[in-house]
Amino acid sequence: MKEVNQFKIEDDDDIVNLMSSLKSTGFNAKRLAIACEIYKQMIRDKDCVKFFGLAGALVPAGMQKIIHDFIEEGYIDILVTTGASLTHDIAETLGFHHLQGNLNVTEMSDSELHNQDLNRIYDVFLPNNVYEGIEGFVSKLEIPDPNMPVSSFLKFLGDTLPKNDNSILKICAEKNIPIFCPAFTDSGLALQLGFHHQNLNFNHFIDMLKMVDLAWDAKKAGVCIVGGGVPKNFIMQSLQFCPNSASYAIQITMDRPEQGGLSGATLTEAVSWGKVNEKAKYSTVIADATIALPLILWYLKKATK
Amino acid sequence: MKEVNQFKIEDDDDIVNLMSSLKSTGFNAKRLAIACEIYKQMIRDKDCVKFFGLAGALVPAGMQKIIHDFIEEGYIDILVTTGASLTHDIAETLGFHHLQGNLNVTEMSDSELHNQDLNRIYDVFLPNNVYEGIEGFVSKLEIPDPNMPVSSFLKFLGDTLPKNDNSILKICAEKNIPIFCPAFTDSGLALQLGFHHQNLNFNHFIDMLKMVDLAWDAKKAGVCIVGGGVPKNFIMQSLQFCPNSASYAIQITMDRPEQGGLSGATLTEAVSWGKVNEKAKYSTVIADATIALPLILWYLKKATK
Amino acid sequence: MKEVNQFKIEDDDDIVNLMSSLKSTGFNAKRLAIACEIYKQMIRDKDCVKFFGLAGALVPAGMQKIIHDFIEEGYIDILVTTGASLTHDIAETLGFHHLQGNLNVTEMSDSELHNQDLNRIYDVFLPNNVYEGIEGFVSKLEIPDPNMPVSSFLKFLGDTLPKNDNSILKICAEKNIPIFCPAFTDSGLALQLGFHHQNLNFNHFIDMLKMVDLAWDAKKAGVCIVGGGVPKNFIMQSLQFCPNSASYAIQITMDRPEQGGLSGATLTEAVSWGKVNEKAKYSTVIADATIALPLILWYLKKATK
Amino acid sequence: MKEVNQFKIEDDDDIVNLMSSLKSTGFNAKRLAIACEIYKQMIRDKDCVKFFGLAGALVPAGMQKIIHDFIEEGYIDILVTTGASLTHDIAETLGFHHLQGNLNVTEMSDSELHNQDLNRIYDVFLPNNVYEGIEGFVSKLEIPDPNMPVSSFLKFLGDTLPKNDNSILKICAEKNIPIFCPAFTDSGLALQLGFHHQNLNFNHFIDMLKMVDLAWDAKKAGVCIVGGGVPKNFIMQSLQFCPNSASYAIQITMDRPEQGGLSGATLTEAVSWGKVNEKAKYSTVIADATIALPLILWYLKKATK
Repeated sequence: MKEVNQFKIEDDDDIVNLMSSLKSTGFNAKRLAIACEIYKQMIRDKDCVKFFGLAGALVPAGMQKIIHDFIEEGYIDILVTTGASLTHDIAETLGFHHLQGNLNVTEMSDSELHNQDLNRIYDVFLPNNVYEGIEGFVSKLEIPDPNMPVSSFLKFLGDTLPKNDNSILKICAEKNIPIFCPAFTDSGLALQLGFHHQNLNFNHFIDMLKMVDLAWDAKKAGVCIVGGGVPKNFIMQSLQFCPNSASYAIQITMDRPEQGGLSGATLTEAVSWGKVNEKAKYSTVIADATIALPLILWYLKKATK
Repeated sequence: MKEVNQFKIEDDDDIVNLMSSLKSTGFNAKRLAIACEIYKQMIRDKDCVKFFGLAGALVPAGMQKIIHDFIEEGYIDILVTTGASLTHDIAETLGFHHLQGNLNVTEMSDSELHNQDLNRIYDVFLPNNVYEGIEGFVSKLEIPDPNMPVSSFLKFLGDTLPKNDNSILKICAEKNIPIFCPAFTDSGLALQLGFHHQNLNFNHFIDMLKMVDLAWDAKKAGVCIVGGGVPKNFIMQSLQFCPNSASYAIQITMDRPEQGGLSGATLTEAVSWGKVNEKAKYSTVIADATIALPLILWYLKKATK
Repeated sequence: MKEVNQFKIEDDDDIVNLMSSLKSTGFNAKRLAIACEIYKQMIRDKDCVKFFGLAGALVPAGMQKIIHDFIEEGYIDILVTTGASLTHDIAETLGFHHLQGNLNVTEMSDSELHNQDLNRIYDVFLPNNVYEGIEGFVSKLEIPDPNMPVSSFLKFLGDTLPKNDNSILKICAEKNIPIFCPAFTDSGLALQLGFHHQNLNFNHFIDMLKMVDLAWDAKKAGVCIVGGGVPKNFIMQSLQFCPNSASYAIQITMDRPEQGGLSGATLTEAVSWGKVNEKAKYSTVIADATIALPLILWYLKKATK
Repeated sequence: MKEVNQFKIEDDDDIVNLMSSLKSTGFNAKRLAIACEIYKQMIRDKDCVKFFGLAGALVPAGMQKIIHDFIEEGYIDILVTTGASLTHDIAETLGFHHLQGNLNVTEMSDSELHNQDLNRIYDVFLPNNVYEGIEGFVSKLEIPDPNMPVSSFLKFLGDTLPKNDNSILKICAEKNIPIFCPAFTDSGLALQLGFHHQNLNFNHFIDMLKMVDLAWDAKKAGVCIVGGGVPKNFIMQSLQFCPNSASYAIQITMDRPEQGGLSGATLTEAVSWGKVNEKAKYSTVIADATIALPLILWYLKKATK
């Protein structure tokens, strides 16, 4: 059994040194360091298909470029996310911006915010005119096929959006990384599509079966879950069909397991379902993704060079 | 300003007395009591359309009949839920059962559970053969229209299931309570449908627009959110189109607001979006729904008699 | 393996029926039901010494009489609590009151509260004049011995306070239930004692050793922990000296285990330390104590009749 | 109102750049960045007395040297901590070590750990022989005065311990940084003192009053709270006597505010009590301290050079 290491931080340390030190500690510091290491192994393992589940308002919180760079660097092979994340991504890609609220969220009441057409996402504000901007874009889309799979529509969307160095949809389209969004109609984007385009019936079943095929064909699977929700479950239900289940698994969440919801479920639980292999390397980091994700990206960029 | 009441519990108290006492306390006891009272007002307000969002593994945790009775008693007008809840509901309706694990969840490892074909949901086990049972039912379904809206399919499913006094799908079908499931393909039920039926493309957009219409037409809206997730967001995005936003709002969750996810977002935040009216009566109860929901139902049955 | 029970609630159920139903469910509903049952067994087991750890602002939240009745009914043999709880108990016992804030805690800013001499405890307010009232009482105390053990001083305090049907200090003094308060100087009560009485040096070591003796002499030990903190640790460190460790253990907390603090630590962890017996019956309920405690008391009063 | 910044991470970024980027985001990333900045201001403000509250098992988790360096660098003027932290610090200072458990904490049951004399602190193990080692040291101490204040005893302890580059007690003694420990008898260290030394009655009241004096005399006060508990409350109750209340406040916690416990209370709440100045700069970071503290130290070492 190894001793806990009482490590020192030097001001000229780098993120790789830091994670190396944290690996010999305990609690979530250790879990974060192990998550970094597992992700590095996923990247180096040429047989590993890397599934990435993204829930939570990460784009409003300034993490769009972080996600973008995970994709650009090749750290994500398949992205599963929410309609809200895509809506926020389009907003920023079209040149609109989320605003910083005060740290002390009580300084302006939500009634006042409402009167000023500011929608609040914890301490970030989304002005109503952003939605109008998205609407202008959405209403003019020439959708090739009202019955196309959601993922094909998202590819089309990425191709159609203007050039932008931060856009998740854009970089996925450019690199042919599929985006799945099983709860697509649960989003502002889908509402505007529904209002402006007749007879849409994007196919969700084809995407579901395609995900199963992707898992089925994966020699090895690795998964990184940010924030739980539908993206987590959609990846996990597919991994049951992966011949070896997931060999690597990371999740970053603030949810807790005791009330039985899937978002907070441990990765160990997923072993019972055959979603994660019993010999998999896995780590759950109980942390706000806005802190953990930039650190992991920083580590990966440095450690995989 | 009212004084906190140091209340006494008598062994012959009833749940209505208890909630009346708790209303004069603080913290989550008070929030729960206020939630009870708000729900009672929603029921008594004949103009109020009652939206109910259900996420989390409540059926595995023995809460199927509780949800069923909310519907049977007329406490729910529109149900929005997850594909997993529907899958679990079908399992129990077909006569299969979830199993109780030990309180100490570590007594059998998840590897052993996997080898015994037991899928774990925190401290509840779902045997694999339940899925086989569902598959037998699903494979024989004669689906009227591969392009029907998800909600229409769920009505068909409720009509088709055998008579059962606990079934959520059944009681909704009988009482014509619509069920919306925006992330339908994120479920074991959808997977089996996809495997056994060709060319399914259940329409999600019609449901999305129907929800908007229901909110639009509601003279008043009341909302009870259990556990967040897609059901919460789907209700909330529709309520933006309700002329007066929600007049009553309750949520029961263990999620926290600080990391910005919608599940943990306060109801006050929803005021900024115009989802909840600034003059609405609302209460968030930070509690496991398996404790809070039975208490609320018990209260409502007694208090609305 | 037992099936999960999809139970029904009848409006004429009582709390004993309800807990009996919840015992066959999962998640925290089941844990709460098992906690009720364990506590009942602790009470019926004549060999069992019942330790009760109380942290958190339960008196401000209207739970003073609940705690009082646990003691009056004989459900507590040894109480360990915080200086804050004692301060709040004295305030209410002297006829002062905590006030109910609005559910929406943002309606009055904390600066405004400060200007109005209202101290906030989440959604409960404590007016500054309460402290002045306590000061009047404390300054006139004729403390028998400046070096007496803290627990002896608390007995003296209970004897000195005016008759009151809700007072925790009073009922403990009347029934000779010892109160331990290891962090006594971390309280408003101690500050006022220190300001008004010279040379106080209440003995903490005698109390610590007395607690060890109480555990040492206990044929069997049962423990109920509310909210963690110093009371939890102080009981647990003593139970290491109980020949059989704790045979029964309950804890009610909202803290989580992953960051390694003792408040959120599982009861299983206490087995490794020899604080809880490996064959003990135990249950951790993840719930706000303001909801769980009244339910447990209600159950015990009914079930042990 | 400022826009949220979609920042990029370069692999040659340093921690100061990172925090500068995070400051323009949202959620806990922003809160962490602001906490870093506030701490830097506290250090640069020559009038500011820096109170530091330390709760939680940080030494077992490998954070001893981190705390040590906060002190060595001059970032802490007054330390308030738990008896457990001091016990763990002595263990490591005497050359004993905590051990790393497996990430998957269920691999060895707590019964087995107990049989192997391994005490578990989440995923860290403390072998029983460590306590025997401490006992050897404690039993031979020649305590100058059985009635000395706890803080004086801790200074004596720091002077007595062997030279060690990681020891918190040692560096505090060397630099004359007072350590307060209001719940001292709630610790393994105190138990061993009580067993081996007769008639100890370390004075807690003198320390309490000394803390009040330190706050009273502080031209400006800054506070950093790690993990809540008694250290938080003890600092906060003293700050009520600081003429200007705290001008800077940081807390790092995983606790939540809704159930009203002080550990999870917001810093805004402290404004109502006059503990934190209404014009103070403050930030609560919802994070595991094992992740946040090393980052803050790293930032401070770099940014204050």
